[in-house]
Amino acid sequence: MAGTSTPALAAAVSNAGGLGSIGVGAGTAEKARATIAELRAATNRPFNVNVFCHRPAAADPAREAGWIAKLAPTFKRFGAEPPRQLREIYKSFVADEAMFELFMMERPAVVSFHFGVPQAAKIAALRAAGVTLLASATNLEEARIVAAAGIDVVVAQGYEAGGHRGVFDPAAPDERLGTLALTRLLVRHLKIPVIAAGGIMDGAGIAACLMLGASAAQLGTAFIACPETDADGAYRAALLDRANVHTTITAAISGRPARCIVNKFTELTADMPEDEIAPYPIAYDAGKALNAAAIARGELGFGAQWAGQAAALARVMPAPLLMTELRREMEQAFAAHMPAK
Amino acid sequence: MAGTSTPALAAAVSNAGGLGSIGVGAGTAEKARATIAELRAATNRPFNVNVFCHRPAAADPAREAGWIAKLAPTFKRFGAEPPRQLREIYKSFVADEAMFELFMMERPAVVSFHFGVPQAAKIAALRAAGVTLLASATNLEEARIVAAAGIDVVVAQGYEAGGHRGVFDPAAPDERLGTLALTRLLVRHLKIPVIAAGGIMDGAGIAACLMLGASAAQLGTAFIACPETDADGAYRAALLDRANVHTTITAAISGRPARCIVNKFTELTADMPEDEIAPYPIAYDAGKALNAAAIARGELGFGAQWAGQAAALARVMPAPLLMTELRREMEQAFAAHMPAK
Repeated sequence: MAGTSTPALAAAVSNAGGLGSIGVGAGTAEKARATIAELRAATNRPFNVNVFCHRPAAADPAREAGWIAKLAPTFKRFGAEPPRQLREIYKSFVADEAMFELFMMERPAVVSFHFGVPQAAKIAALRAAGVTLLASATNLEEARIVAAAGIDVVVAQGYEAGGHRGVFDPAAPDERLGTLALTRLLVRHLKIPVIAAGGIMDGAGIAACLMLGASAAQLGTAFIACPETDADGAYRAALLDRANVHTTITAAISGRPARCIVNKFTELTADMPEDEIAPYPIAYDAGKALNAAAIARGELGFGAQWAGQAAALARVMPAPLLMTELRREMEQAFAAHMPAK
Repeated sequence: MAGTSTPALAAAVSNAGGLGSIGVGAGTAEKARATIAELRAATNRPFNVNVFCHRPAAADPAREAGWIAKLAPTFKRFGAEPPRQLREIYKSFVADEAMFELFMMERPAVVSFHFGVPQAAKIAALRAAGVTLLASATNLEEARIVAAAGIDVVVAQGYEAGGHRGVFDPAAPDERLGTLALTRLLVRHLKIPVIAAGGIMDGAGIAACLMLGASAAQLGTAFIACPETDADGAYRAALLDRANVHTTITAAISGRPARCIVNKFTELTADMPEDEIAPYPIAYDAGKALNAAAIARGELGFGAQWAGQAAALARVMPAPLLMTELRREMEQAFAAHMPAK
């Protein structure tokens, strides 16, 4: 939840007995250092720091110019000029030596990877430094790569999940495995622990994942409406419009498939061919510029409003209270099915 | 599982304490009468009879001719002529008065509907006759129609599920809700009981669905490899090729989106535009003819090899034994999470 998660949210979750997470992949190592310091000031408990392991984007000026041209009429609608050229706004962890050095120095209890795994030497060094490593997988093949790389735990990211699909190769066919099927497939086929993710919004969902053999559940969308996040008003309003909140997978916002609330951006780009979109994260530079232009004219429907399929179950609740509720609901679900004596 | 389920399978499941199901929508009322009689001879317990409630197909000779032309080269490859014209091979229950009269006479304990719900008068008559009614839904909007129609129980058919997606209007956008998210959304929003379906292959999966608040779980793919089914050798072999079994949604086989094992048919048609496919079930006439032509030349990859996303967890086991295993696994999952005293 880079851009939405905050040290305050992660600390609240960790202090309540969960594993709070903070995404730092959208910023520099220097910024991550400050974020981790802020988090450490707010909790003494373990937390998870998340980074992106995408293959660094290869610039393709023609494709990028084509993508800018495609969005230009919409920029114009908002009285703005489209960017002249797009930048690779997020540095992949696989190419970010400063971030690696920071992790080696700071040694957060847990580091998690999305879009793939980093170099073997980095994995070995972090593990030797006592850092527990997580990586997401959307199918069994990716999960086997994760396990073979020596990662400690795999996050089974089901198709329900909000935000970016963790697919390693966005050009490969995506089997779109649902959380239930994917979690069970990974639990049955792998020896390392599995964390289930995607569509889990309450304690009943957590209980279900544990029944599938997951060691834990990862919730994102469930926390977006907490006052501790950086989600803006438009994002919160879209999420909490319960009768109308629907999600879709789009690559048009960032360059990689991600699950977003159906909004003006996803509608605008729904029929644009995926191979015309600039690659991740270069397209994201255009997407963020378009959102800024739209906001300047009072149009709030162009944000990266990531959310999972069960978004309609989102709650507005301070994170510590939500954690208490999740635990209570989970125990209630277990108790309802206690084996007969 | 019309075409794969058998009275022997349904009876075995019912006799083992489950609710055995038999699909009769692919045949006439006369054939259904014989099927129900066969089932009643094999079990005294309740069972479920399933029919299709699709909007009857409107013939569109130009589109059908176009679809035949599209498949013609493949027919030729197998030394066969494509059909001159396509028939609506399955009669919808909404237009099948003989089937309705049969149900009123035979009064099976449970009747279930797919692709929609029948006329209000039929629903009222069947309920008054003591028949419990089920209908599938793939999203909250469909589920609300089901509940408002007076159906007793809704089947939450997640995106993982094998076979035909129960979408009411195949032309409408499909949100592709996973089983976990869909089940929880329906349980939270509806007053009628919910049965979870899609990707459930073992007792752990059943336990997970009960945690979500489902009243039961519906398993299909888990039973295909049972000796009691009519699945042919090629279907079984494709299903049990565990290292390679993957599924995809295709409308090309029948005219409606359905989840099938990736095979020669799904590969042939993967890039064909959906709006060129003849409507359901007219396209199915061509699909079955193509499969027959392929089989005649020893090519076994053109069948309607429906399966859910967790197909790789399929087991070869007589149905009574599988039922025992499912129960044992479910209880084991519950016991592992028994609340601390």
